[in-house]
Amino acid sequence: MPETLIKVDLTQSAYDNDMVHNRWHPDIPMVATVKPGADFIVETYDWTGGFIKNNDSADDVRDIDLSIVHFLSGPIGVEGAEPGDLLVVDLLDIGAKPESQWGFNGFFSKKNGGGFLDEHFPQAQKSIWDFEGMFTKSRHVPGVRFPGLIHPGLIGCLPDPKMLETWNTREKALYDTNPERVPALATLPFGPTAHMGRLTGEAKDAAAATGARTVPPREHGGNCDIKDLSRGSKIYFPVYVPGAGLSMGDLHFSQGDGEITFCGAIEMAGWVHLKVELIKDGMAKYGIKNPIFKPSPITPKFDDHLIFEGISVDEHGGQHYLDVHIAYRQACLNAIEYLKKFGYSGAQAYSILGTAPVQGHISGVVDIPNACATLWIPTKIFEFDINPGADGPTKFLDGSIQMPLSPDL
Amino acid sequence: MPETLIKVDLTQSAYDNDMVHNRWHPDIPMVATVKPGADFIVETYDWTGGFIKNNDSADDVRDIDLSIVHFLSGPIGVEGAEPGDLLVVDLLDIGAKPESQWGFNGFFSKKNGGGFLDEHFPQAQKSIWDFEGMFTKSRHVPGVRFPGLIHPGLIGCLPDPKMLETWNTREKALYDTNPERVPALATLPFGPTAHMGRLTGEAKDAAAATGARTVPPREHGGNCDIKDLSRGSKIYFPVYVPGAGLSMGDLHFSQGDGEITFCGAIEMAGWVHLKVELIKDGMAKYGIKNPIFKPSPITPKFDDHLIFEGISVDEHGGQHYLDVHIAYRQACLNAIEYLKKFGYSGAQAYSILGTAPVQGHISGVVDIPNACATLWIPTKIFEFDINPGADGPTKFLDGSIQMPLSPDL
Amino acid sequence: MPETLIKVDLTQSAYDNDMVHNRWHPDIPMVATVKPGADFIVETYDWTGGFIKNNDSADDVRDIDLSIVHFLSGPIGVEGAEPGDLLVVDLLDIGAKPESQWGFNGFFSKKNGGGFLDEHFPQAQKSIWDFEGMFTKSRHVPGVRFPGLIHPGLIGCLPDPKMLETWNTREKALYDTNPERVPALATLPFGPTAHMGRLTGEAKDAAAATGARTVPPREHGGNCDIKDLSRGSKIYFPVYVPGAGLSMGDLHFSQGDGEITFCGAIEMAGWVHLKVELIKDGMAKYGIKNPIFKPSPITPKFDDHLIFEGISVDEHGGQHYLDVHIAYRQACLNAIEYLKKFGYSGAQAYSILGTAPVQGHISGVVDIPNACATLWIPTKIFEFDINPGADGPTKFLDGSIQMPLSPDL
Amino acid sequence: MPETLIKVDLTQSAYDNDMVHNRWHPDIPMVATVKPGADFIVETYDWTGGFIKNNDSADDVRDIDLSIVHFLSGPIGVEGAEPGDLLVVDLLDIGAKPESQWGFNGFFSKKNGGGFLDEHFPQAQKSIWDFEGMFTKSRHVPGVRFPGLIHPGLIGCLPDPKMLETWNTREKALYDTNPERVPALATLPFGPTAHMGRLTGEAKDAAAATGARTVPPREHGGNCDIKDLSRGSKIYFPVYVPGAGLSMGDLHFSQGDGEITFCGAIEMAGWVHLKVELIKDGMAKYGIKNPIFKPSPITPKFDDHLIFEGISVDEHGGQHYLDVHIAYRQACLNAIEYLKKFGYSGAQAYSILGTAPVQGHISGVVDIPNACATLWIPTKIFEFDINPGADGPTKFLDGSIQMPLSPDL
Repeated sequence: MPETLIKVDLTQSAYDNDMVHNRWHPDIPMVATVKPGADFIVETYDWTGGFIKNNDSADDVRDIDLSIVHFLSGPIGVEGAEPGDLLVVDLLDIGAKPESQWGFNGFFSKKNGGGFLDEHFPQAQKSIWDFEGMFTKSRHVPGVRFPGLIHPGLIGCLPDPKMLETWNTREKALYDTNPERVPALATLPFGPTAHMGRLTGEAKDAAAATGARTVPPREHGGNCDIKDLSRGSKIYFPVYVPGAGLSMGDLHFSQGDGEITFCGAIEMAGWVHLKVELIKDGMAKYGIKNPIFKPSPITPKFDDHLIFEGISVDEHGGQHYLDVHIAYRQACLNAIEYLKKFGYSGAQAYSILGTAPVQGHISGVVDIPNACATLWIPTKIFEFDINPGADGPTKFLDGSIQMPLSPDL
Repeated sequence: MPETLIKVDLTQSAYDNDMVHNRWHPDIPMVATVKPGADFIVETYDWTGGFIKNNDSADDVRDIDLSIVHFLSGPIGVEGAEPGDLLVVDLLDIGAKPESQWGFNGFFSKKNGGGFLDEHFPQAQKSIWDFEGMFTKSRHVPGVRFPGLIHPGLIGCLPDPKMLETWNTREKALYDTNPERVPALATLPFGPTAHMGRLTGEAKDAAAATGARTVPPREHGGNCDIKDLSRGSKIYFPVYVPGAGLSMGDLHFSQGDGEITFCGAIEMAGWVHLKVELIKDGMAKYGIKNPIFKPSPITPKFDDHLIFEGISVDEHGGQHYLDVHIAYRQACLNAIEYLKKFGYSGAQAYSILGTAPVQGHISGVVDIPNACATLWIPTKIFEFDINPGADGPTKFLDGSIQMPLSPDL
Repeated sequence: MPETLIKVDLTQSAYDNDMVHNRWHPDIPMVATVKPGADFIVETYDWTGGFIKNNDSADDVRDIDLSIVHFLSGPIGVEGAEPGDLLVVDLLDIGAKPESQWGFNGFFSKKNGGGFLDEHFPQAQKSIWDFEGMFTKSRHVPGVRFPGLIHPGLIGCLPDPKMLETWNTREKALYDTNPERVPALATLPFGPTAHMGRLTGEAKDAAAATGARTVPPREHGGNCDIKDLSRGSKIYFPVYVPGAGLSMGDLHFSQGDGEITFCGAIEMAGWVHLKVELIKDGMAKYGIKNPIFKPSPITPKFDDHLIFEGISVDEHGGQHYLDVHIAYRQACLNAIEYLKKFGYSGAQAYSILGTAPVQGHISGVVDIPNACATLWIPTKIFEFDINPGADGPTKFLDGSIQMPLSPDL
Repeated sequence: MPETLIKVDLTQSAYDNDMVHNRWHPDIPMVATVKPGADFIVETYDWTGGFIKNNDSADDVRDIDLSIVHFLSGPIGVEGAEPGDLLVVDLLDIGAKPESQWGFNGFFSKKNGGGFLDEHFPQAQKSIWDFEGMFTKSRHVPGVRFPGLIHPGLIGCLPDPKMLETWNTREKALYDTNPERVPALATLPFGPTAHMGRLTGEAKDAAAATGARTVPPREHGGNCDIKDLSRGSKIYFPVYVPGAGLSMGDLHFSQGDGEITFCGAIEMAGWVHLKVELIKDGMAKYGIKNPIFKPSPITPKFDDHLIFEGISVDEHGGQHYLDVHIAYRQACLNAIEYLKKFGYSGAQAYSILGTAPVQGHISGVVDIPNACATLWIPTKIFEFDINPGADGPTKFLDGSIQMPLSPDL
């Protein structure tokens, strides 16, 4: 087996592991260095560092301090990597930790993070998903079972000081347009809960004060939450600092396009087997600003989908101009209403859209004023038939199983 | 062969064909009636009724009066259809007219319609695509050839008066927020160029004055421009008026997700072979507001893609909040820059994204403040290798072939 | 539209069309000549030249004189083609004749042709399949409906005299090992029913006496009955005579691997739109003896199959040595027994295996003494669920619909 | 993690592990018992019990005593299983042992086992394949790299005495038709090297004398070598003895249809995570004689193939009657000739056909006298372009890398 460069002990606090960090900053020291062509293994915590438990209460989802996320493993230096290069990363394999064959999905309270449908699901809820080899199912969401399209939600290289400043400046400017908003428009640097890896003392404090939060995807990739960056895929990352500094975490057993439930996909602790290579000066050669990638030849594939449309007219009848975000929200709400006819609660249906390998397509973005988005649900993830027919839907579920909910305190 | 219910003569003006209309209004008379279970053929003009020609000038794209579109064939009545039903439509087959084995794609001038990337491509341009059986290629865009995922860009049932009023009211409200904008925020009813099918006299004038324009997708479906509503798919449409009143047009030989070039996909005149059935009271039974559909088992499938990411930071560095439209625009611009390294002009690259079966995925919509969108280009549509490699890109094209451009007058 | 080089009139005898032939011989004159790069259309009879009718009797299947088949359209000359070249044929599109939107499938009597399972189905039977755009279904085989993977069962270039002699010699040698066998071991030249195209008089008689029958696939391709030579595929044919001499026919709307029912796949009259190009000296360059091909990017794809295994122990318990033919027969018989549990007659189940896009895989050929073959049935061709479950099969069909059978006279 | 019911120590002889056996016999004691619904892990040796080494000599392939194979882990009892039931096995996941991330492929000498192409490759040869996560490549076969479609080559339940006798009787009868043949027509019971699990003393000797060899696939499944019984698939096995007695081994990282190289696919030691359930009386309910299965939703999929045809005329021009074995051999030989044009040795090309996920289809089995078989090679397993073109093939390999060969002694 290849060497495991970074190990994590799930019984230990992520803050006590100095090969982990939860902010982006060029000063975070490399924890290991590899040569181009090397393949190696990296273990990671789940994004919350173990805060969310395998139980039947959503209290942890309600109470989590979101300034602690995401706990990333790295940064790993690559010999010879220089700014302007492309770091080619092969995700050779990914898995859950043997001692932790489960994951979680949930919705944050609107008062603590919220999410895509927080107007409709304003309180903290949670579902636990057990893994059976390549498959998963949940004791809180009956009637679905599907193979995992396992991927890291978050992966990328360290920014250089200039890029870091660009991030902080533009996000602060947005934040300042409505600083009272709950949830906030952006997550700004926050020193008290920063984990800066092997930085200590004043150097740590200085970096923590300006370290970019890990929440949004940015030019380097980062928290893209792209379900198709799955095992077997190949990614080309921009390099900004000497040595590249690759970090990763936020592993997902499975996720739907959009990760609409926000308290994740099916979130898990695990390991990544990867290989790194360089394309010298690749950013200029290929005109690259954001990462590009090639998907895996080994993915769960479904040929039969039921597809829901949404347009950019909101739930209250308000007309928006080519707003794909609203169009996709409508497609998701349409799907939830449909699934309720088969016996799911709204929360369970929402949870399925967040966890199963559903596709979200930008179908039309020019037919003013309405964008059109489509949500593709693979019909075979269900243990019963959800296709429409002349006789109407069958209520397969009796409502006796529900997802834990923890009201705001 | 099944009966051809509606014929169109491409040498005749669409205005002279009374089985065609270009507005949505409940008063437009049915031009034919079929029983549930019937299959039949409907011919259609291209969306402009033949205005765009198979030549090497973009003058027609620049000069078109966009208030004339889209010329739809119908409405077709279905016996027994009542408001609240679902009309189940099987698209059994679709093809180009034998005498018209070509299509067009273009960009509108920013002064006349504009489009998704009109800041970058502000002038009228055009490319012509010839069909070779199931495949297409263009004399204006070298090095690509692909099979068609043929579909109607526009299909749906007549609205009832209440729905029509909802549409007109909400779109007018948006329009009024910035009535001077070019291009306009919405397309409002416009009588002078309305074609109301078999309505005549005062009834026609009255309907034309309030008939909804065909541009946006709406609750009934309409101009969804969903590339996956292709031949072999099955669609469930809401019914609003007795008899349903199904109309269709705007056929596309192929289109990328988003139809980002706006002057279409690969636009063509053609025919649709379809079958209709009813699910009585299906809207309530299944909780349907917008159409749902099942894709075809017979589609061009590609397993190898090159994928571009975009986030909701605009071309000028401006930070937007979870704006998928901007994120997708960035992914598209990133792809265009990449393709230029292989010798394509920006316009040619843009044209490929508008015509080829590229996918646009809503990859992340919760990681504040950045949405993440991905653009999937099938690598096998190219006659050369566009994958990245250590040696950098090869310039396969020498720039000798360009797309016609007609400057604004 | 491209030119139609060869037309057929389905109301006229194929013998009266001099652009048709039913034997392979180098002396058959070209009926048209095209340049490399040309695309054109060729119409064809069904393989029997219209002998089998769209009715509910199998008498025609029982009574047909099989020495008349297959009626091929051609040969078409390609300018510049020389022996040793590869003729590259793009099957740009294929369809049924508009006036003939149906096809047939059947089993020959063991006394007249027989077939793969003639021990089990010794009498003539027939089913008629109606086309609905890209789909087909049969009034004689309820509960299945599937899209067509349309292809020519028979296509290839004229042999030269030496190859013709090789064919005749080796097939005669086999025939002579058991000349009394019914059905015969091989089909030998037979002048009386030969149609030699534009050859007349003595030249015709001489060629007819030695013209190879069209039944088997041979080095040039010919009657390969490969379901994957479908529209959109590209084939590389060996060229043996100057001008190549491409002929084709035996169109199938759909077929299962093996064409096990022999009285065809879903046999139809129709047209092929094709394009030809040359690779000069391609046979030596690529070491080609038999045709090679690349399948279409546009095929009906199914991701869910039920798979049956068979080994080379025959129905009577006899042990054979690595005999894939017997192993596949067992897999087919196993599938038929399974389908009978859902209410199909054995004949209907056999018909499904012959017509639907089932796959036959050579799974193991080295584990002495048993070969292992597998038969893959796409589950979605059925209108009901054929998967196994704890409750056992449901008998969906009551046996009221059966396939016509005509006993031997 | 689920319990590991059977462990194997690769440093220990398989004969010393009493949870392993290498013959089929109803008297072999169960080594563990599970309840229906249980999931658990089983470790296995490679099929030779570690005889073949990761080195650069084929001596071990030449010298192996083939009477020792295959070392299977089991049998495992399932509570409540009775003769006539179906044992439903979910292959939840499969992998290589962490300490053994490699596999082997080879050809046996014609004097010791031989194989599909032993006329052409009569001497022992070997290639070693290293695993990189989900992918594999070989230092002996350059230019190919592909993801593994991991599967057990051999899995099934214990026979009852009657079935055992049927096997022994019919195979002996075949053997006796030519007892001098090398390689033999069948592998008969052979006590000296038998490993009968936990049987000891006289009981062991008695069972060893009649225990069926594990080489051929039979009614219970067994050594089917079906590449599609991969992780994620679901298999329905006939049950013959109380408790079922499920055993498995002969894991393959990847294999082409037919396993034509015989000294395996890519053979490896590893583990299987599986789940078992019962369908009571399932054999009669569904008319099951041989296992049936449903393939995995998670497999390496390739959409682009180059396909070779073969007919049942042998290498020497001999005409055979509908012999699919010979037809497939011709297709394989045709592919080998083609690949040699790109620089591969014949042995390397043969090795690719045995290891990569190539498909072998039974394309036509009724067009007397020639069967037609096709071999499908996925083009993307090659690091260069193997498609034909007007310019002829490029010799990408210079022959400096060859596969080890060990001449017969």
